Order: sequence, then C-alpha cells, then structure tokens
Amino acid sequence: MKVSARNVFRGKVAATRPGSVNAEVDIDLGGGDRLVAVVTLASLEDLGLAPGSEVIALVKAPWVMVLTDASGVKLSARNNLAGTISAVAVGAVNAEVTIALPGGTEVMAVITRDAVNELGLKPGVAATAVIKASHVVLGVPV
Amino acid sequence: MKVSARNVFRGKVAATRPGSVNAEVDIDLGGGDRLVAVVTLASLEDLGLAPGSEVIALVKAPWVMVLTDASGVKLSARNNLAGTISAVAVGAVNAEVTIALPGGTEVMAVITRDAVNELGLKPGVAATAVIKASHVVLGVPV
Amino acid sequence: MKVSARNVFRGKVAATRPGSVNAEVDIDLGGGDRLVAVVTLASLEDLGLAPGSEVIALVKAPWVMVLTDASGVKLSARNNLAGTISAVAVGAVNAEVTIALPGGTEVMAVITRDAVNELGLKPGVAATAVIKASHVVLGVPV
Repeated sequence: MKVSARNVFRGKVAATRPGSVNAEVDIDLGGGDRLVAVVTLASLEDLGLAPGSEVIALVKAPWVMVLTDASGVKLSARNNLAGTISAVAVGAVNAEVTIALPGGTEVMAVITRDAVNELGLKPGVAATAVIKASHVVLGVPV
Repeated sequence: MKVSARNVFRGKVAATRPGSVNAEVDIDLGGGDRLVAVVTLASLEDLGLAPGSEVIALVKAPWVMVLTDASGVKLSARNNLAGTISAVAVGAVNAEVTIALPGGTEVMAVITRDAVNELGLKPGVAATAVIKASHVVLGVPV
Repeated sequence: MKVSARNVFRGKVAATRPGSVNAEVDIDLGGGDRLVAVVTLASLEDLGLAPGSEVIALVKAPWVMVLTDASGVKLSARNNLAGTISAVAVGAVNAEVTIALPGGTEVMAVITRDAVNELGLKPGVAATAVIKASHVVLGVPV
C-alpha cells in the first residue's frame, strides 16, 4: 500500500468495544502510544478486527488539530496525544507540523501558518495532537 | 487552551437531543448565531453538557465549505450559516476565507484558490458556511 | 448552487439502507461510477432520498486520500474509487490531484506535495480515491 495520508500508523488492536451501530477500536502503536478509532460494526466484522489483530490507521494531516496549552479544557475528541514538536515546515497559507509522541510515533498535522505563529510552534515545544476517533480510517493486511 | 483550529466558538448549550448512540447539541454563540454539533452520548455525559453549560466548539477551517448561491438546494449538513465575507487571503493552492455571521461570530474556511475565483469571493459578498455537525469538536472548561 | 467544494457529484440514488441511527445511500454517478454516503435517518427523511431521487454529493478535496498501490490492504472507508490521474497542480505545501474514474467522474484530492513526490503522482498513473462515507454531504434540488 502506498497512500497520500501523512499519518500511517501501524499497530495492533488492543481492544474493541462494539456498540449498537459503531465500534471503538483501541490501537497499540508501540512504546505506549495509543490511538482510538471508531468504525461501523459492519467494518469491524468485514476487516476481522479483534484484540491482537494487526491494523493500519490512516489519518490525513489536515484532520489533526494542534493544542499547545491543554490546560483548562476537556474535549469531546477521543485522541489527545501529548508529545513534542519535532518539525515545522511553513508554506504560503498552510504549514506541516510533526509531533513526536513519547513512544516514538510521529503525528503530522497540516494547520494554517497563522496558527503556527500564534501558538509559537517550533521544534522542542510541547504540543498535543487532537484527532477525532471517527476520522481514523482503518486497514488490515490481506 | 491554545489550539490550531481557526474556529474556536465560545457559547452556551441551548439544547441537547440525545439519540440512541449520538446526541445533537445546539449551541448559542450569542447575537442569535447558532451551531449544531453531534457528539457521542458518552462524550455528552463525560463533558457534562446540559442546557446552559458553557461550551467551546472547535472546527478546523478545512472542514468548512463555502456556498455563495444557496438557492435551489437543500443539504444534509446541519449547519448552514449565512453571512458576509469579511476577509480573503490567497495562497498558491489554498485560500482562507472569513465569513462574518449576523450575530458577530466569524467563521474561517480554507478552500482552494480556484474556488475563490469561481465563486467571486471577496469582502462584502454574501456567503454561507456549511459545517457538518459531526465535524465539530466540543470542549468544556475544567 | 455555487459551492467551494471541488467535488460536486450529481447522480441518482441507487439504494438506501436505513439503520437504527444512520442510513447508507448508494449513488449512481453515471457510467458505472458509484459513491456511498452515510447520513442520519433524519437527513434521509428531510431530503426525501429514495431510489431514483436526484442527488448532489459534496466532498471537499482535503477529505480525499489518494492510494497508488491498493494491494495488500483492505480499508474501513466505504469509497475506494479506482481511476487514473488526469491532473496534478503543486503548491508550496499542498497539491491538487485529479483522478478520472472509468465512468467519466473526476475526483479531486488536496494532499501534501511530499505525498505527490513519494507516490510518483502524475497524469496517467493509476490511483484510487479513498473517501469516508460519513464525509459526504448530500443535497437535493428544491
């Protein structure tokens, strides 16, 4: 597989929590890093996802928010991945920001250049990647 | 909280409509401006959202569509926020467009430069910001 | 209607599959091209979507992933639209990529310039547009 998504996370399913329509899937990315995805029950069965399954999680970089001061707020998004900025590349309107998580996973966000300036984003700054669980596309090797 | 999302709407919960899996949350942004979000029932409870609660709604600018002629079509997206363009900043591929709503709320969209040209977007032009309710991330002060 | 979304697909509803909360809508785009959308049951009724209905499907270009080697992986995303790249326009950070489907539909994706380079995207290259069904906004003529 070769895909345009800047975030291609490979891991193992740690747990699945089927609901009446959707299922939450906890993914162990290694080194203690985790990601939660929500897929339909139909996808859960179609992909055969169960604890221990190998899984690929795809997240486009423009779907990732960056939070630098997470204090004073609690969000509905299931993934609040705290790490440290490892790279910033700035364009005319947008910028790519890479956040390294403690376990070694790197998360790339595309945000506006204005946001980079306002938040003072540069390598070494602590930042949290916010990803809605329903924005994660899951894949399995076939 | 400091976040990269260009749209950080502060308001109060006007109503919640819990369903079997998700809940719709109507948010009063002040001045008559409103936003609808959909979150899971688990998030609704976890954040303690109820009528009157203070709430922050985050929407990344690339999640916002801009409609200039809303005539002749009815959309599935829950938020169709009519206003007037207050700013346009153009890059190589993308552009940032700000729409001022009647109540004073400003909504920023990132769209392609081609769309800006085709739709003739410039300050003073009437435009509608279209936002899917499921693309809104909610937060509460803690 | 004039909208910023780069993908405005016009078609007819081929089938609807109502669930307990959401409904899947199969859309015939002509020439054999198909798209699947997920909307709430409330939207399905509100828009009066039924087999044979005229429908407009809106998808912003940043919501589309591009896959060049779909081998070895099965994805949770419902739309995996295989075609051939017909155009690539590159900016500082982002790039617009157009994929022509066999039936004549064109799908535009906004991805990073790095992805264009890594995947070797240029006109004539086979590529698959990946779109989550829940990211499609539906509209009907009124």
